[in-house]
Amino acid sequence: MLTISDRGQNMPASPIRKLVPYAEAAKAKGTHIYHLNIGQPDIETPPVMMEAIRNAHFKVLEYSHSAGNESYRKKMAAYYKRVNIDIDYNQIIITTGASEAIFFGIMCCLDAGDEIIMPEPFYANYYGFAIAANVVVKPITSHIENSFALPSMEAFENAITPKTKAILICNPNNPTGYLYSKEEMETLKSICLKHNLFLFSDEAYREFCYSGKHFSAMNLTGMEEHVILLDSISKRYSACGARLGAFITRNQQVLDAAMKFAQARLSPPGFGQIGAEALMDLPENYFDATKNEYQKRRDALVSRLNKMPGVVCPNPGGAFYAMAKLPIDNADKFCQWLLESFSYNNKTLMLAPGSGFYETPGLGQQEVRLAYVLNVDDINAAMDCLEKALEEYSKQVTLN
Amino acid sequence: MLTISDRGQNMPASPIRKLVPYAEAAKAKGTHIYHLNIGQPDIETPPVMMEAIRNAHFKVLEYSHSAGNESYRKKMAAYYKRVNIDIDYNQIIITTGASEAIFFGIMCCLDAGDEIIMPEPFYANYYGFAIAANVVVKPITSHIENSFALPSMEAFENAITPKTKAILICNPNNPTGYLYSKEEMETLKSICLKHNLFLFSDEAYREFCYSGKHFSAMNLTGMEEHVILLDSISKRYSACGARLGAFITRNQQVLDAAMKFAQARLSPPGFGQIGAEALMDLPENYFDATKNEYQKRRDALVSRLNKMPGVVCPNPGGAFYAMAKLPIDNADKFCQWLLESFSYNNKTLMLAPGSGFYETPGLGQQEVRLAYVLNVDDINAAMDCLEKALEEYSKQVTLN
Repeated sequence: MLTISDRGQNMPASPIRKLVPYAEAAKAKGTHIYHLNIGQPDIETPPVMMEAIRNAHFKVLEYSHSAGNESYRKKMAAYYKRVNIDIDYNQIIITTGASEAIFFGIMCCLDAGDEIIMPEPFYANYYGFAIAANVVVKPITSHIENSFALPSMEAFENAITPKTKAILICNPNNPTGYLYSKEEMETLKSICLKHNLFLFSDEAYREFCYSGKHFSAMNLTGMEEHVILLDSISKRYSACGARLGAFITRNQQVLDAAMKFAQARLSPPGFGQIGAEALMDLPENYFDATKNEYQKRRDALVSRLNKMPGVVCPNPGGAFYAMAKLPIDNADKFCQWLLESFSYNNKTLMLAPGSGFYETPGLGQQEVRLAYVLNVDDINAAMDCLEKALEEYSKQVTLN
Repeated sequence: MLTISDRGQNMPASPIRKLVPYAEAAKAKGTHIYHLNIGQPDIETPPVMMEAIRNAHFKVLEYSHSAGNESYRKKMAAYYKRVNIDIDYNQIIITTGASEAIFFGIMCCLDAGDEIIMPEPFYANYYGFAIAANVVVKPITSHIENSFALPSMEAFENAITPKTKAILICNPNNPTGYLYSKEEMETLKSICLKHNLFLFSDEAYREFCYSGKHFSAMNLTGMEEHVILLDSISKRYSACGARLGAFITRNQQVLDAAMKFAQARLSPPGFGQIGAEALMDLPENYFDATKNEYQKRRDALVSRLNKMPGVVCPNPGGAFYAMAKLPIDNADKFCQWLLESFSYNNKTLMLAPGSGFYETPGLGQQEVRLAYVLNVDDINAAMDCLEKALEEYSKQVTLN
């Protein structure tokens, strides 16, 4: 019999995708859905991006350099200098989204059977890339009671084996919004130096920090050979569709290996690079408005959530996500019920069940991730729905 | 010590890239280089592509569907119907170049340690994707004396082991230009049905057939579950920089697995999809001019090559490549010498050494690949250079 591969079978389906048929059915019934389930920002993409593309003139749309256009990489290096990260443009490989940067990192630093430690809950697709690469994910749990702070050094050391090659963090974090402190970053440094590990740092949400200051893994002195920065313009500039990210490291051996993977896929997207280069020229205060908007939303969302009986939501320091614990039996069931059986004023909301972000079985069953990618009015309306839904759901569960 | 992965080390560097420093040095000396080394077409990208992007209006550049925009996939399905390939748009996943389609195919159908058979010489990056996936490439040799026709059924069967899961072909072929006949495709069908193998068919050059008619693997009846079509708009529409390809299969299990990989990387490039959709509306005769141009170039190139003493170049049936056997000791050395030590009227040419397209050690050492991506005048001028170079090189070699 013709069978697909084990990895094709084991590759996880998107945890949110299984809810899509229920969302479609709800929409078909005329129910409005507040989408707090996905990290697709609603902020306007800076018009300079589209203008730069409109003004581009070429006869032939050629492959770019495999590492990306030099002019774009030079402007990126200048952007990094502005955010206090000192790298040369030759240390940047432009990737097709941060997704490809994660993939390059895993491929270049880990072999099949090697282990990577990730604090959970974590961005679900990290797990998919690990499966694709036959790499073993060792989760160590961060806890909502502790605002999802970095697990202890002891927790990391208990998870380390001779097969461990890397730690992967996202800072500020998706899905928790947690912003790692300088001290926590120094803890990671100690662990990586002591146990000779790579540190993959996904900093796609760098600009969106509301409580505390972002400390980049690239600024951990003595870690030059260990750190691989994974980046993306998707969230920063609300340009998810361009599919542009970056793989950045000062480790020449890793960079050389990544270039071979980059050459095999020829080049990153061309039109997007033209537009992204223009984004690098935006004034330094460009992020102020976006950040203020997200902060207002965070404040509205978190305050509403914590006022609901039995709901716990730590105040996220950055990104545009919050993880909340709800007084429910099972978030997968609850999220489906919201779409299938609930509406309030003909409206409901879509959330991402927490279990999809944990690798340890059984964790996150009362948790949901909320992406605050709607304006404050919509967030308040969505929270009205959630409040009513929790009341109604608790009655249902009691009745059954 | 912090070390990179074995696969990062084993990943092959681009066989052409090692010549780049010599090309740069030649250019710095003021020598003009005729680039016959890369498959970057010089044909104008259809202006409708750029127009469609210029006319696009959106507030937020969102992720597209992970399988690509539905409107684009529907137009692609209509394109395939026009070229007599009957598929539904739901059987198409838009990929980031054919590169990603190859990667999805290998990932979904083969596990680490599984084997894939490829007639050699083959597109060098296939090998890179196999290495990345820990898949073993089993080359079976096609021969220049036989115009690089499909190796015999016996040759395939000798290479098949219990680990063999798939055969990968490129039709018309890069690097040989060979166009597989219907009979050869039927042979592949017999092998795949008998030994239960997937058939990956890269048909990126489908429209460029000069001698004979293209027969798509998708039209092998009884092979519906076995065939995976890998495609790309890069060469067809001279739109390499858009990074758009497609992964197409009627095997639902494979399609479902590929969708999980597609979801993990979120979506294919957004701007390119807008432009590519417009390309699908080009009139059916759009390819006539391009095809005629390539045919003229092929005729000029092949005729010039075969007139040179000791040179053999089979007439390629399609694509825009020819493999030629030269009266030289070593093509890697010769190609470097062309850039480093030779010029004629202050001009030289850059070729791709044949060894980079063979997996069996020692093969292709007298062969080079020539991409006819220059106009006929430039091809003739490049052939003038090659003729002089071969004369001069033979004297050098005799002297040493």
